[in-house]
Amino acid sequence: MKNFDFYNPVTILFGEGRIGEIKNKVPNGSIVMLTYGGGSIKRNGVYSQVMAALDGFKVIEFGGIEPNPRYETLMKAVEVARSERVDFIIAVGGGSVIDGTKFISAAIPFKGNDPWDILAMAGKVEINHAVPFGTVLTLPATGSEMNMFAVISRNSTTEKLSFGHPLVFPKFSVLDPTVTYSLPVNQIANGVVDAFVHVIEQYLTYPVNANIQDRWAEGLMQTLIEVGPQALANPMNYDVRANVMWSCTMAVNGLLSTGVPTDWATHTIGHELTVFFGLDHAVTLSIVLPSLMREMKGEKRLKVLQFAQRVWNIEVGTEDRKVDEAIEKTESFFQAMGIKTRLSAYGITEEQLKPIFDRFEERGWKLGEMKTITPDRVKSILLAAL
Amino acid sequence: MKNFDFYNPVTILFGEGRIGEIKNKVPNGSIVMLTYGGGSIKRNGVYSQVMAALDGFKVIEFGGIEPNPRYETLMKAVEVARSERVDFIIAVGGGSVIDGTKFISAAIPFKGNDPWDILAMAGKVEINHAVPFGTVLTLPATGSEMNMFAVISRNSTTEKLSFGHPLVFPKFSVLDPTVTYSLPVNQIANGVVDAFVHVIEQYLTYPVNANIQDRWAEGLMQTLIEVGPQALANPMNYDVRANVMWSCTMAVNGLLSTGVPTDWATHTIGHELTVFFGLDHAVTLSIVLPSLMREMKGEKRLKVLQFAQRVWNIEVGTEDRKVDEAIEKTESFFQAMGIKTRLSAYGITEEQLKPIFDRFEERGWKLGEMKTITPDRVKSILLAAL
Repeated sequence: MKNFDFYNPVTILFGEGRIGEIKNKVPNGSIVMLTYGGGSIKRNGVYSQVMAALDGFKVIEFGGIEPNPRYETLMKAVEVARSERVDFIIAVGGGSVIDGTKFISAAIPFKGNDPWDILAMAGKVEINHAVPFGTVLTLPATGSEMNMFAVISRNSTTEKLSFGHPLVFPKFSVLDPTVTYSLPVNQIANGVVDAFVHVIEQYLTYPVNANIQDRWAEGLMQTLIEVGPQALANPMNYDVRANVMWSCTMAVNGLLSTGVPTDWATHTIGHELTVFFGLDHAVTLSIVLPSLMREMKGEKRLKVLQFAQRVWNIEVGTEDRKVDEAIEKTESFFQAMGIKTRLSAYGITEEQLKPIFDRFEERGWKLGEMKTITPDRVKSILLAAL
Repeated sequence: MKNFDFYNPVTILFGEGRIGEIKNKVPNGSIVMLTYGGGSIKRNGVYSQVMAALDGFKVIEFGGIEPNPRYETLMKAVEVARSERVDFIIAVGGGSVIDGTKFISAAIPFKGNDPWDILAMAGKVEINHAVPFGTVLTLPATGSEMNMFAVISRNSTTEKLSFGHPLVFPKFSVLDPTVTYSLPVNQIANGVVDAFVHVIEQYLTYPVNANIQDRWAEGLMQTLIEVGPQALANPMNYDVRANVMWSCTMAVNGLLSTGVPTDWATHTIGHELTVFFGLDHAVTLSIVLPSLMREMKGEKRLKVLQFAQRVWNIEVGTEDRKVDEAIEKTESFFQAMGIKTRLSAYGITEEQLKPIFDRFEERGWKLGEMKTITPDRVKSILLAAL
C-alpha cells in the first residue's frame, strides 16, 4: 500500500425529504446565490423545495450553467456575485452545475490577475479563500457533490481543464434519490457508467496489496452492475435509485484512491472527444475504456485477471481468455445501459480524429499509472474504437 | 436504504514516516498536552519521534492512561490541562488513550456541574467547545482515531459508559503501520477481532437493500480474514500491517453504518464482561458474538445466509446448515487469532454471571436492531457461552 492523505469534510444529508433541511445549514443572514442549469429543477419541483427552504434569505438566482460548464458563463456569475456581495452559494443540479459553482466559489475572491489561472495554472496559483457553498444533487454521476475537484471548459480556446482545492469541498450535499425519478433514461445510464469508470480508473492498474481498496472498488462495481439496469427498468424504485446515487458519490470522493496508483487516462482522452465532438462525458468513457483496456492489457494483466474473477465471476478458460472476456463484459455492460461504444456510431471518422492526435502529440503527455500511454498509444486506442 | 447523515472531517496521514508531519498540523504557539498510556511508546521509538516533531512547542506530558480508561485518571489530566492552559492535545496510543483524550478534550472547557455528566447524560448535556487534538495511533483496533465516540469506565461505580460529539473528532490521525511491528501478538489479534465485530454489528441485522454498504462490510471482513492470520505469522510485513491498520479505521468511522440498521448488542454485553472480570474488549466480543448469532439466527437469518455465501463462500448444504457453518467459521476465526471463545476458558462460572444478569434485568434494556434482545435473552446468550 502506498502512503496517502485522506480528508473529506463534506456533510451528506441522504434520503427522501431532506431538501428542507438546508435552511439549518446556511448561516443566518447570508446573501445566497442559487446556481442551476437549464431549468429542469423548475419542472420537477426541486426549485420550489429549495426556495421554500431559503425563505427569509436574500436569494440571487443564476441559471443557465450548461453541461460541460463554460468559463465564459461562469464569469458572468462571478460578476453578479461580486456586485451583490453573495456570501453563500447553493448549487442545485448535477456535476456541471456543481463543478461550475466550485469555480465561481474560488473565482469570486480570487486576487490573481486572471481567474482563468485557477484552471490554467492549477496547483500553482494561490487560493486562500472561497465562498462557501452547499449542493442539492439532482443528477448522480460525477461525484462532484463530495469532492474538491471541478472540470471547466473554455469555448474560445477549445480547452477543458480541471482544478482541485480543499476550500471548494461543498459544506453539505443533499442527496434525495426521489429527485432522480424524473431524469431521462440516458442521464441515469450516463451516471452509472460515469461512476463505474471512476472506480475502474482507481482500480485497474497494478497490485499494491491494498486489499480493502480493491474489495471496495469491486463491491462498488458489482453494485453498479446490479442496480444499473434495474434503474433503467424501474425508474421509481427508491432503493435502486438510492444505490445508484450513493454509488456515484462514493466512487470518487477520495476513498477508493487511498494508497493505490490511479490511471485516469480514459478521462483525459475522453475529455478531448467531448471538446471536439460534444459527446456526453459518459459516452466518451464508454468508447475509450474498452479500447484502452485492450491496448493496456499487458501492463494491467494482474488486475484485469482479478477484476475478471471478482467482479464478473469468470472462473474458467485460459488467462488470456479471461482477460478478453472481462473486457467484453465491461463493454456489454455499457451497451446494456443503452450507450453505443464505438466512435463510428456517432458518425466520427478517422479523419476527424486527427486534431486530437495532433494535440496529444504536441503536448507529449504520457498517461496512465505507469506513464506508458504515449501519444502513439492514444492514437491506437482511438483508432481501435472507431 | 434508510435516510442518513454522514460527516467525518478527520485528516488521515497514512504510511511509514509520517509522524514528523504533526509539526505542520499543530497551530503555532500551542501549549500541547501529550497523552499516552503505560510507556511502551518510550521503548518503541514513537515517543522520541513525536517529541522531535513537537520541538519548539511547550509540551506537557500526561502518561498512565490505562486500558479501559478511567474517569478518575482522566480528571487528573483535565486539572493539569486547565492549570497549564493547554490548547492542543496529541494522543499517542490506542483506543484507550484516544477515547480518554476525547473525554479530556470535552471536559477541560465543560461548563456543567459535573464532568461525569458528559457520559452519564450523554446527548443531554451541552458540549459547546472542546480542546482540539490529534492522534498518533499505535494500536489499530477501536477506530477511535477516525470517529467521534469514546468509552470511559468509572471505578467507583463499576460503570462503563460512552459519549459522542462532533467536536471530539480528531483534527488529524497519523497511521504509520511500522509502529505496530513491536506490538505483542495478542494485541494485534485483539485489534483484528475488534474491527471484525465492529463491521458485523453494522451488517448482520436485516436487509434494507443497501447494496454498497453490504458489499463494503463484506469486503472489509474478507480482508480481515485474509490479513489477520498473516499479521500474526509475519509481524514485519508492511502491507499486511497496513491492511490491518486501515481496516480497523474504516470499520467504524461512520461509513458502514450509513443507511442501515445496526445491532451493537455484542458490545453492550461485552462491556459488562470487561467491567466485572477485566477481560480484554476483543475477548469479550469473541465470547459473546458467536453465542449471540446462535440466539438470534431467526431474526438475522437473511443476512446470516448472505454472510455465509459472500464472506465464507459457503455454497452447499441446507439453509440451516449454512447458517450454522457461518457461525462456526466465525468462531473458528477468532480462535485462529489465538482467542478463546468460552467464558469457562477464563475461569468464569454461571454463579459469577449473576450480577450481570441482575444489572440487565434492572435496566430492562432491549438490545439489538429489532430491540428483541431482552434481559432473558442476554442471560441465554451468556449461559450458552460458558
